[in-house]
Amino acid sequence: MAARGFVFDDVVRIYDTDAQGVVHYAGYYRFFTDAVERFMSDKVGVNYPLLDDKIWFVVVESEAQYHNPAKLGDKLSVSLTTKMLSKRALRFDFRIKRKGTDICSGHIVQVAIDRTKWKATEIPKGLAALLSKG
Amino acid sequence: MAARGFVFDDVVRIYDTDAQGVVHYAGYYRFFTDAVERFMSDKVGVNYPLLDDKIWFVVVESEAQYHNPAKLGDKLSVSLTTKMLSKRALRFDFRIKRKGTDICSGHIVQVAIDRTKWKATEIPKGLAALLSKG
Amino acid sequence: MAARGFVFDDVVRIYDTDAQGVVHYAGYYRFFTDAVERFMSDKVGVNYPLLDDKIWFVVVESEAQYHNPAKLGDKLSVSLTTKMLSKRALRFDFRIKRKGTDICSGHIVQVAIDRTKWKATEIPKGLAALLSKG
Amino acid sequence: MAARGFVFDDVVRIYDTDAQGVVHYAGYYRFFTDAVERFMSDKVGVNYPLLDDKIWFVVVESEAQYHNPAKLGDKLSVSLTTKMLSKRALRFDFRIKRKGTDICSGHIVQVAIDRTKWKATEIPKGLAALLSKG
Repeated sequence: MAARGFVFDDVVRIYDTDAQGVVHYAGYYRFFTDAVERFMSDKVGVNYPLLDDKIWFVVVESEAQYHNPAKLGDKLSVSLTTKMLSKRALRFDFRIKRKGTDICSGHIVQVAIDRTKWKATEIPKGLAALLSKG
Repeated sequence: MAARGFVFDDVVRIYDTDAQGVVHYAGYYRFFTDAVERFMSDKVGVNYPLLDDKIWFVVVESEAQYHNPAKLGDKLSVSLTTKMLSKRALRFDFRIKRKGTDICSGHIVQVAIDRTKWKATEIPKGLAALLSKG
Repeated sequence: MAARGFVFDDVVRIYDTDAQGVVHYAGYYRFFTDAVERFMSDKVGVNYPLLDDKIWFVVVESEAQYHNPAKLGDKLSVSLTTKMLSKRALRFDFRIKRKGTDICSGHIVQVAIDRTKWKATEIPKGLAALLSKG
Repeated sequence: MAARGFVFDDVVRIYDTDAQGVVHYAGYYRFFTDAVERFMSDKVGVNYPLLDDKIWFVVVESEAQYHNPAKLGDKLSVSLTTKMLSKRALRFDFRIKRKGTDICSGHIVQVAIDRTKWKATEIPKGLAALLSKG
């Protein structure tokens, strides 16, 4: 149940912003998703969230706290920590910073499902081991 | 090959806008899509763009001209005209106005495909007839 | 500090969905935003989230629980409850259902800011009164 | 009026896709926008599309042709060519490929505006020169 941490760079694009001149609240979930997909592809080496023909990961919970606004062109660092919640559920925590300033923090919880039945199933043991090691 | 016209109301939401304070250029395609889906659901009575287990409509071309900016909360009228280009291809033209002012015009072309082969196929005759009548 | 409840209809559009064939997790925030903007425009009668030249509402927290997947074309009812958390902060709770089936629930917290200073400020008393009455 | 070409890598994310299992037609404009912003930031060295306090670039035309579908996780190369259309207007042409297969091509036209008047204005000579050289 240990946690692993990684940091990814991202940039605020014009389509992330809204008429308040800063990133739209729901737009931060793009940075969360980018970090998870890059982590799973580059660090773990699996397809995600469509793991294979049988197992998919589906989001069952999302949450974000907005600390300071981010603007167009801001270079952000998105840190990601993984935590196995059970044999079926996986949590990712995120912290988004801009040069040391807290911008946004939050998390998503994902559950593995058998996509043919759309029912929760166990995360393959090898993948669970990779996600758990410190 | 006659054309049919319909008008739908829509409203500019905060997520349609960007840091320029107006609707993001790619955001206008949401209004195009809303109009097509409402037209196909409410006026024609079919599921769209996933027609049934076999036939899907896929977009092969999109284009928009931006005449005047639209702002958060603006009430827009989106007029839609359909045109059968061939037995397989269907074109929708759009004009978006705000109280008589031209905001955006454009079009999309969609082709019917057999989704199991991802190959172009004929639009069912009954649907083609509905889409062609004046 | 009483709560008010309203229900709005919305429809799942193709752009709300992702390759899992259901609404993308972050896409539910569109339904939350639509409900708030329709509530503030149609029921309360104010511009939102850009209240006027001085006061804007900014989201400081968002959260969603995903109970059952929603598909393209699904007709959803989005119920909204408002709650004044303080003189500066306003909470909206949401429940999204499809014919009685729970699809998604969640909330956002918004704070009024003086947009010229980007600092928290009091929600105008008249608006706070409208949002508080049972 | 010569053209300059650059190529950027991008990846199809889950939020780019829709229920057809491939990139949503309007989603390709994200790849266009990413390429332009990276080009202007990394190669030209200017803020974009908000150039400075006075001059912004606004999109007046967009168009895309969809040749083959792209799926979640696909690694795409996005090539970009710039062309000065006049002292005020700038065109970007795009070709998106996946390992040599044509996925999408298209363009956008942008016009420089004086943001205080929302009127077309000349692109600064230094920037125009940078964008024109072969």
